[in-house]
Amino acid sequence: MTYCVGMLVDRGLVLMSDTRTNSGVDNISVFRKMFTWQVPGERIITLLTAGNLASTQSVVSLLEERTKAPEERDNTLLTSPTMFQVASEIGSLLREIIATRQEANGIRGRDRFTASIIVAGQIRGMEPRLFLIYPEGNFIEAGRDTPFFQIGETKYGRPIIIRGYDPTMSLEDAAKLLMVSFDSTLKANLSVGLPLDLMVIERDTFEAGHERRIAHDDSYFQAISSSWGDALKEAFHSLPDYSFYQGD
Amino acid sequence: MTYCVGMLVDRGLVLMSDTRTNSGVDNISVFRKMFTWQVPGERIITLLTAGNLASTQSVVSLLEERTKAPEERDNTLLTSPTMFQVASEIGSLLREIIATRQEANGIRGRDRFTASIIVAGQIRGMEPRLFLIYPEGNFIEAGRDTPFFQIGETKYGRPIIIRGYDPTMSLEDAAKLLMVSFDSTLKANLSVGLPLDLMVIERDTFEAGHERRIAHDDSYFQAISSSWGDALKEAFHSLPDYSFYQGD
Repeated sequence: MTYCVGMLVDRGLVLMSDTRTNSGVDNISVFRKMFTWQVPGERIITLLTAGNLASTQSVVSLLEERTKAPEERDNTLLTSPTMFQVASEIGSLLREIIATRQEANGIRGRDRFTASIIVAGQIRGMEPRLFLIYPEGNFIEAGRDTPFFQIGETKYGRPIIIRGYDPTMSLEDAAKLLMVSFDSTLKANLSVGLPLDLMVIERDTFEAGHERRIAHDDSYFQAISSSWGDALKEAFHSLPDYSFYQGD
Repeated sequence: MTYCVGMLVDRGLVLMSDTRTNSGVDNISVFRKMFTWQVPGERIITLLTAGNLASTQSVVSLLEERTKAPEERDNTLLTSPTMFQVASEIGSLLREIIATRQEANGIRGRDRFTASIIVAGQIRGMEPRLFLIYPEGNFIEAGRDTPFFQIGETKYGRPIIIRGYDPTMSLEDAAKLLMVSFDSTLKANLSVGLPLDLMVIERDTFEAGHERRIAHDDSYFQAISSSWGDALKEAFHSLPDYSFYQGD
């Protein structure tokens, strides 16, 4: 399994992914699920991937190949004029890869491969944008009403994002919120695992603002993880006490 | 979907269930998923059900029928000498009902009906006990290491129980903790809905200690729901701030 979140705030984009892949509990590995391309000062684009690893790696490898072949006619990531076109192109690629593999294996219905991709970024002259691409190749865009996307093991870490999100929050606070959301997920589900990758894209900078791999020995993440338990308990006790006799 | 939790603390058992059933989002209904039988002063047994509603209602109806027929030879709920035997009997009943229905419909593999039941209670002379019964009819028992069971839509509300649970907590606090867990789930998932049913079984009383239906207009639940958002935000801000420059 996987857990990735892409979040849009007024000041930019904050993205986080775990790195665990598993095929059964006795076959776990570390794979990067966050990939960034940039033309400094002009554009930065980050992908977060979940689902069938062979499919998402194929998408990323093809995109990567294209960035390295300057004569390649549809060098999507580096030349597309809009983020919408980037998302659209990645969607086609994902759909095609899944479809080809399924047809080759005669796979249908519920056994189909599945994968989804979060695409985030900003191109000069335009707003930061955040998309969620489905295995069918179509996609949706985040906005004021739904300012974040989660993929993979999304449920454990959702309540805290719903409660903690604020569009005006600082990028540091947004990163902290994602750490708490990931910590809640890590505590409850073995299929999501450290290290985590964090990427912060500050609005109108067109470059990676802050990039970090959070490993087991990361002292800040450890502090969040250990103090969140106490903070939650305090929050819990700050709520009005329940009495069996009230209102009866 | 459904969300039910059974929790064992030193002072007894606390149980909560929602009441929403849905078959698609345009066909939702309210059904009770919590059922209690008692012989005051001697035993109290509560069931929480999740999964295929026709199957769990069958189990409950059969159990109920048997309590009303004094000549019925295996009047499990009211005469079984131990909670283990109660769980075992309910397990057989559940397995049988599911198997019969599947065979009659030629259903196999992943399309099978599924349902699970939490059984909680205490019989005089013995400890309070808590079981989780699987559709296969077998079951597990809660203990010190895993003192609570969740069924249905379990993930959203799990992190707060993991963080907030303490075996020495009062029954009032245990009820409050379940309300927070349900509130987190209700906020994130439409398939879990009010009203909620709460049952508190105080150790060695052998009767329903506190029973309550929490409806939309329940002022305590409203207070929890509205103050939990603020309490969480405060907890979040009490954590050490993240800085992009630390440790770099």
